[in-house]
Amino acid sequence: MDVARGATQLLSSQNVGDLVDSVEAFLFDCDGVIWKGDALIDGVPQTLDMLRSKGKKLVFVTNNSTKSRRQYAKKFHSLGISVNEDEIFCSSFAAAMFLKVNNFPREKKVYVIGEEGILEELELAGFTGLGGPEDGKKTVQLKPNCLFEHEKTVMYQIDSNFFENFTLCCLLAIEMLQNSYSQVGAVVVGLDQYINYYKLQYGTLCIRENPGCLFIATNRDAVGHMTDLQEWPGAGCMVDAICGSTQKEPIVVGKPSPFLMDFLVQKLAF
Amino acid sequence: MDVARGATQLLSSQNVGDLVDSVEAFLFDCDGVIWKGDALIDGVPQTLDMLRSKGKKLVFVTNNSTKSRRQYAKKFHSLGISVNEDEIFCSSFAAAMFLKVNNFPREKKVYVIGEEGILEELELAGFTGLGGPEDGKKTVQLKPNCLFEHEKTVMYQIDSNFFENFTLCCLLAIEMLQNSYSQVGAVVVGLDQYINYYKLQYGTLCIRENPGCLFIATNRDAVGHMTDLQEWPGAGCMVDAICGSTQKEPIVVGKPSPFLMDFLVQKLAF
Repeated sequence: MDVARGATQLLSSQNVGDLVDSVEAFLFDCDGVIWKGDALIDGVPQTLDMLRSKGKKLVFVTNNSTKSRRQYAKKFHSLGISVNEDEIFCSSFAAAMFLKVNNFPREKKVYVIGEEGILEELELAGFTGLGGPEDGKKTVQLKPNCLFEHEKTVMYQIDSNFFENFTLCCLLAIEMLQNSYSQVGAVVVGLDQYINYYKLQYGTLCIRENPGCLFIATNRDAVGHMTDLQEWPGAGCMVDAICGSTQKEPIVVGKPSPFLMDFLVQKLAF
Repeated sequence: MDVARGATQLLSSQNVGDLVDSVEAFLFDCDGVIWKGDALIDGVPQTLDMLRSKGKKLVFVTNNSTKSRRQYAKKFHSLGISVNEDEIFCSSFAAAMFLKVNNFPREKKVYVIGEEGILEELELAGFTGLGGPEDGKKTVQLKPNCLFEHEKTVMYQIDSNFFENFTLCCLLAIEMLQNSYSQVGAVVVGLDQYINYYKLQYGTLCIRENPGCLFIATNRDAVGHMTDLQEWPGAGCMVDAICGSTQKEPIVVGKPSPFLMDFLVQKLAF
């Protein structure tokens, strides 16, 4: 099927009909395209109604990770636009789908530097999220001999004398089993208005110390459209902070990464 | 004069005497060299005493920006080492010296994402710092029609009808005078354990909206040695966060930038 992206022909009143007729699905950004802050942009309802009347598939794609698809559908409805959750592709959902498509083990946990939307999409996809808003008011203890605790992979070194002590062996086997279910295997970073040193340290330690821990960015946008009058630091701010402390580059799942577009094209094909 | 840096000859018990004899000044890092956390490293007092007895100049250079030279001297003394403030070169001091050497206008303000050390060094150098620990508990208001206020450069557009109104002209002249003294002309970013979205937005807006506003990084170290048992996100974390939200690269004044070394070499020559 055809998906309208990257068209180089300039639209005019003469050829707009040809474009609409030749395309089955239309992808819309949200911030600055559908709305600005909490205000609907002029002409949007009429345009969407026209496309729906022609049987076009509509998809709303946003890099904003603060909300889940359910929360976005609610926002659409509050602005008088009827949109199905299945028509919404936000980067919080993209993060959850990336883990699902890549068979991320369900017994591993996901630490979130971001907001409620990411945690909700992770839960819906069957994953266990940690952090997010819950860690927004946590502070760090910077004292000598004080260790910052985080859910980490426990490594065991078993030497030749180990099996001499059967009781220790049994206890350790139980502990290994418990710990194998409690490790953080991925850190998802998105826009987080409650960013703090606690979360930065938690995410950094997981990525640095847990072997194979994924570092996933919902997107790297410099600005986030948190209010209508002003631009705010976007997810790129939090993502780059973690790049700075880990010296690692993230897997980006939102625009303009190929993951979201490939996922969308596959989904639209059915 | 000779300054011992980047020596490629391996030191041995045979040639260490030659090195000491051939060099006038010794530069030491602090974290991991003089101390670890709050514990002095073995052999340090004896080494320093030996070098002093030979009339060597000693300089203690640290990228840690959380303290001022005065605060570092206090830490040295608490560990039983007598050090003069003039022998300490921390990156908080480097930031203040960079502004001084480059004739940063004293009527402009400096916004600080960092800790007390930077503010103290700015004040000692005759500059006005804003932010830092004071903004650590501030939160943002994310409401429609709500504008985040920051000290910005005020731009005036005067048209041909302007001079028709003399009273307006006088009032505006006074306002221009007041505002020219209240603008932020530089943002200094260092390690900040009280990092939050308020500070990130403040610093981002100054760099984005104030023409010519400097973006200065004390350093870009990935890790900061905040406690003895664990590594913590360093200034590189906060600096990269601002790179992510402004899409700009900072002027780095700490190691390994040439500024601090050039400044030191010049100072040691007198």
